[in-house]
Amino acid sequence: MKENMSKNTKEIVFYTNPESRARIVRRMLEEVGQPYTVKVLNYNGEMKTPEYLKVNPLGKVPAIQHGDLVVTETAAICAYLADQFPEKNLAPPLDSPERGTYYRWLFFAAGPVEMANSAKACGWNLEDNLQMVGSGSHDDVLKALELAVSKGPYICGEQFTAADVYVGSHISWGMQFKTLEERDSFKRYVERIEKRPAFQRATKLDDELSKG
Amino acid sequence: MKENMSKNTKEIVFYTNPESRARIVRRMLEEVGQPYTVKVLNYNGEMKTPEYLKVNPLGKVPAIQHGDLVVTETAAICAYLADQFPEKNLAPPLDSPERGTYYRWLFFAAGPVEMANSAKACGWNLEDNLQMVGSGSHDDVLKALELAVSKGPYICGEQFTAADVYVGSHISWGMQFKTLEERDSFKRYVERIEKRPAFQRATKLDDELSKG
Repeated sequence: MKENMSKNTKEIVFYTNPESRARIVRRMLEEVGQPYTVKVLNYNGEMKTPEYLKVNPLGKVPAIQHGDLVVTETAAICAYLADQFPEKNLAPPLDSPERGTYYRWLFFAAGPVEMANSAKACGWNLEDNLQMVGSGSHDDVLKALELAVSKGPYICGEQFTAADVYVGSHISWGMQFKTLEERDSFKRYVERIEKRPAFQRATKLDDELSKG
Repeated sequence: MKENMSKNTKEIVFYTNPESRARIVRRMLEEVGQPYTVKVLNYNGEMKTPEYLKVNPLGKVPAIQHGDLVVTETAAICAYLADQFPEKNLAPPLDSPERGTYYRWLFFAAGPVEMANSAKACGWNLEDNLQMVGSGSHDDVLKALELAVSKGPYICGEQFTAADVYVGSHISWGMQFKTLEERDSFKRYVERIEKRPAFQRATKLDDELSKG
């Protein structure tokens, strides 16, 4: 317990831009409820400065620095924070079956959902390339997402987890930007996610940053 | 310990086709070293039968069934198996910084690397769509992968993990199918991965299935 406490006091630095997937990390940070330092980087060069490339050689946001460790990739940051702050119950127990469901939909959103959304946004034809692209067709992706969100109030059943922070954001944005069809099950699920106090705090903070 | 033992005795059923990403799951299963039942499904309809759709409504391989639980998504299956069999040390401890590195590169391979490889294989232009696609350019993806594999013998340093099973397979296939440029650091890393006894057993089993 003592070791755990000391870990939790390492500074969290959050590198972000409110016009990016970094909004998902903000939602996760608000769920975790630990203090964090915000560094906003614009798209006019601030992500490519030598100073920031030392933190994240990929020159992208989001990234977090937690003590000496840098984590990038939105879903990875969510999963990492859930594990680092187990007292927040944002991940199913390591030895539970729900842990499999948790990973399943985290990776499904990071892979196939990102692929289907990108293909739609860029006008790429997914359906003619299903042998090479692992995502499945756009329709298959929608069908799978319905399966993910229709079984319980949350992806892992009764427990709200980092998978809901991540997948919920993808579904919400997908409907908003018309890359994902609106479906009743999606709307009901997103409503549940968006009424959380942490979600609302995160949105307010990022909307204010956006207005500049 | 008793509870853990009983969990490990649940049957693992592995749904696969050796001409797919399911080979990665086989490598992971061989690392885990538990018995598993293999069900091979061909691409001529066997993935779309009512019986299989009851297991995986996405109609794809790989999938595993572990007791009552079904897990899909190659990276998710690898991460799940690592957590279920902690005595194999195939994931860094939950509260270690390495856990962040582990997730970082698992998700990086499942998202940006899949995206960059698919774009290259399908002739899609990633570079003109970087505002919409989160992966970064093909060059950025290569640079990031070099960062992942150049720090230690393995992605998490001295410890071989499920991230090496997954990322190593992507790098190896990427070079083989010319979607990823050959680089010395990639070749050295892949050599380390491919000389593992579990990797060699898995390859032999899948090559035999392929010859059918």
